[in-house]
Amino acid sequence: MSDVRKTIAGGATWQEVAEDRRRHRDATDRSPLPEDLSIINTDVEELARCLASGEWSATIVVRAFLRRASDAQGMVNCVAELLVDRALERAEYLDCYWMEHKKPVGPLHGVPISVKEHIAMKGLDLNAGFVSWVGRVAEEDALLLQILWDAGAVFYARTTQPQTLMHLETSSNLYGVCANPFNTSLTAGGSSGGEGALVGLRASVLGIGTDIGGSIRSPAANNGIFGFKPTSGRLPVLGWSAPMEGCEAILGTIGPLSTSLEGIKLFMKTVIDGKPWLRSPDLVAMDWRDTAGMFGEKLKVGVIWDDGVVKPHPPINRALHKVIGKLQKSQKFEVVDWIPKDHGRAWSIIAGLYFADGGAQTSEAINASGESWRPLSKWIVKENPHIKKHDVTSLWAACAERDEYRRQYAELWNERADVDVILCPAGPGVAPKLDAARYWGYTSQWNLLDYPAVVFPIRDWVSVRKDGEGDTPAHDPREYIPRSEADKFNWAQWDMYGAKGYKGAPISLQLVGRRYDDEKLLAALEVILKETGLPTAAPPTRPWN
Amino acid sequence: MSDVRKTIAGGATWQEVAEDRRRHRDATDRSPLPEDLSIINTDVEELARCLASGEWSATIVVRAFLRRASDAQGMVNCVAELLVDRALERAEYLDCYWMEHKKPVGPLHGVPISVKEHIAMKGLDLNAGFVSWVGRVAEEDALLLQILWDAGAVFYARTTQPQTLMHLETSSNLYGVCANPFNTSLTAGGSSGGEGALVGLRASVLGIGTDIGGSIRSPAANNGIFGFKPTSGRLPVLGWSAPMEGCEAILGTIGPLSTSLEGIKLFMKTVIDGKPWLRSPDLVAMDWRDTAGMFGEKLKVGVIWDDGVVKPHPPINRALHKVIGKLQKSQKFEVVDWIPKDHGRAWSIIAGLYFADGGAQTSEAINASGESWRPLSKWIVKENPHIKKHDVTSLWAACAERDEYRRQYAELWNERADVDVILCPAGPGVAPKLDAARYWGYTSQWNLLDYPAVVFPIRDWVSVRKDGEGDTPAHDPREYIPRSEADKFNWAQWDMYGAKGYKGAPISLQLVGRRYDDEKLLAALEVILKETGLPTAAPPTRPWN
Repeated sequence: MSDVRKTIAGGATWQEVAEDRRRHRDATDRSPLPEDLSIINTDVEELARCLASGEWSATIVVRAFLRRASDAQGMVNCVAELLVDRALERAEYLDCYWMEHKKPVGPLHGVPISVKEHIAMKGLDLNAGFVSWVGRVAEEDALLLQILWDAGAVFYARTTQPQTLMHLETSSNLYGVCANPFNTSLTAGGSSGGEGALVGLRASVLGIGTDIGGSIRSPAANNGIFGFKPTSGRLPVLGWSAPMEGCEAILGTIGPLSTSLEGIKLFMKTVIDGKPWLRSPDLVAMDWRDTAGMFGEKLKVGVIWDDGVVKPHPPINRALHKVIGKLQKSQKFEVVDWIPKDHGRAWSIIAGLYFADGGAQTSEAINASGESWRPLSKWIVKENPHIKKHDVTSLWAACAERDEYRRQYAELWNERADVDVILCPAGPGVAPKLDAARYWGYTSQWNLLDYPAVVFPIRDWVSVRKDGEGDTPAHDPREYIPRSEADKFNWAQWDMYGAKGYKGAPISLQLVGRRYDDEKLLAALEVILKETGLPTAAPPTRPWN
Repeated sequence: MSDVRKTIAGGATWQEVAEDRRRHRDATDRSPLPEDLSIINTDVEELARCLASGEWSATIVVRAFLRRASDAQGMVNCVAELLVDRALERAEYLDCYWMEHKKPVGPLHGVPISVKEHIAMKGLDLNAGFVSWVGRVAEEDALLLQILWDAGAVFYARTTQPQTLMHLETSSNLYGVCANPFNTSLTAGGSSGGEGALVGLRASVLGIGTDIGGSIRSPAANNGIFGFKPTSGRLPVLGWSAPMEGCEAILGTIGPLSTSLEGIKLFMKTVIDGKPWLRSPDLVAMDWRDTAGMFGEKLKVGVIWDDGVVKPHPPINRALHKVIGKLQKSQKFEVVDWIPKDHGRAWSIIAGLYFADGGAQTSEAINASGESWRPLSKWIVKENPHIKKHDVTSLWAACAERDEYRRQYAELWNERADVDVILCPAGPGVAPKLDAARYWGYTSQWNLLDYPAVVFPIRDWVSVRKDGEGDTPAHDPREYIPRSEADKFNWAQWDMYGAKGYKGAPISLQLVGRRYDDEKLLAALEVILKETGLPTAAPPTRPWN
């Protein structure tokens, strides 16, 4: 590890800074370490039990995950930094603690957790994907990490994010492109794409991402894992790094990605039991609540087949049909269509509020080093027709429009008061081709509304069929009249690549609850999975094994 | 009641519009109506019981309060409009309902509630204190009023607010000045000053105000009643009218003023039981919680004697000493000093965020009619040294500074983790002389922090002593060196008028809790009042009776 990092402030060119960061990353990637499939194939809730009981040592466990992460990095380029020394030192401490006290330090004793790079770790670089920010060193751990640390976690890997943090892919000049482990011509998603790929490869069973438009859910969907964006104000974001600090028009959230639904729940309960609102007063003082009595005898599921803006590709439609078919066969569910209300307008509202300074701070962070603009950075900042440099008066008007949309959507739900959750696509297709993730509506909709949303994999149809059976176009491409430029782009992708082009890509769906119904949402997903026989965890062996 | 109201849009001068509004008000003020002291001297919780049991009819009750409100208007000029026809019609409906069903429609069956004017009532003017806004007619009731209506409330009076809504007094060109019922040379406080005076005169036992810097608590303190500003996001503000819609840097709240602590609690529970978050999705989905176990065997009270910016007048100091003396004599309390942290900076932060457009929308609302600027409007908009016309970037920076201050204050409380509540002055003196309410720090501090705060009266020393005994200056005015212009102004008032100048003014204090500790705060106040023998309700007879 080089002691003197190259930075723009230090006089290096942006190419030199990027090369130095990659050299640093590779220097942290020190094999050989033992590989133990029985460890990495264990989901986090079981891992926590084995560690708490002393059956497995924290050292053995983290060494297995470090080795796997090193391999994952070689395969898809998802790691910003491996924390071999820190993790082994921490594991050793925990093992000594267990030996001495014969009990775990907390509910996550020895559990290895991977973390998206822009969440601060004391003494480490905090570049958030910008070359010019290399050299910013975190003075302390983000509050979330402090709470997880107190619960016994071992942090062992930092994962990549895209330039701007505002792609649904993971492409930066610092670390390059993170590919999808199931088909390297596709994106791992983003902006928490490094996490998505790492967890997709079971090189992590519990990771932390962030989401302001789909950045946890897109990587979860693209990698066949669970990803949860909670309601804002429930998990602490204090200590993350991003442009536009102080902006509150659209709130980003932090959340878990995991191979299992139990992992998501364990994470949420552990963090919220730490009463983060006492240290981060922007949070809501709301305990992680028992879900008993939160829904009736039947669970009522509203279905969005199509958001009315961009029609999903055939694999998504097929997955939705199969799941709905299973729900309809069970006495425990009632299924109704949910007619989306103005989702196109929702996108124009949120896209106009992401960069209320017209993109000035983001542009400055890119331009300060002279680094080049990645294609999707250009797309969201420079080619975004909704972006506006607001003044205070126009910002207030835009926020009032946002509030009115939220109010109308709440009334829509009141009119269907007995709907518990909404089932919908997680995107307009499976993992897109690289640089083609250009429709956010299926995820950003729930950021605008600040509704909790969880993505889950469909195991029976874990990937796009090799033969493309049933995935032929739902229309004759010569006759389909796209509703919009975005719809046209999405269907041109399918027409161009077809089922073969997306071979191997996992298929996932999304479940959405009302604001603050986080606990109810996860409980509803559990009922849905268990009652229909859908998987509650990603499979232990994967196509690429 | 004139059918055609005069408005600026209709070509009237501002003087004509104001005169017409007063003519309208006086036309709604139709005596004679029966006066029944046994009714108006009954606090709301007992009133609700008598109405629910059928002992009293809604009609009898509301007629008593209408008559009293008419008298109050004549005494101190606190009413914007009496709702004689509406209220009697509503009461008749409720009485018929009771006769038919032998049960109340809800927990507030027949309870008369007074409402600050800028909270929308369907079909009525909604001017928010601006002459130019006369003629804006509400299309529906504010959400809060809908919930109270469903609970059985009778709305019978609309009360005045100042021009801009941003004075701690109540002075407008539409309705003139609302005086303090206990000493008409003093202010009733503001901006919910009409409510404060009405409840102070027991012409209402439960009223609704709004508060962004002290606007519920200042009138409560000045009129010797209870007033509660909850944490934001607990009560719905949907349907109020004010400039700067869409602004979220500092959130105003809505809340109750009442002659009794039980009235405050009844109001909070009734509204929150109505699950307002389902219709107003900016709210937190948090039930009104049981307070069992919220504090230990001893209640630990932190005391702020002086905020370090403006030193309170002698009557406030005396009241604090007496209450603390009582607490210290009880085994149930532990009292510690709370050292205020940078309350001066807190004022500069909040005063810089109140009008982030430099006051443009507020100035426009005044200037559109040509009406004159009231002295305190000038003071807060034109002479406020912290006001700034922000751009989006500087607004974000100011919000980040606000967040950092909040975080530091939370850590301050964490360091004193066992403090349950803070006891402090509600202002730098008793009710100020008219146009002299120029220090907001004792209330605005808790708006900046978004902590719940309740004001309560001190019955044993209900007013400033007639002889001024014990209220001589705490310093020799020739020698005291004020800390600031604000401190100098405050002490010049005391030096000028002395105890005699404030004769009759009620003395009140303020109790503050951590964010979202609304239930705990009110429970703590109840313990404090009961254990020390302080009144839980304003006295049934008043000095002016």
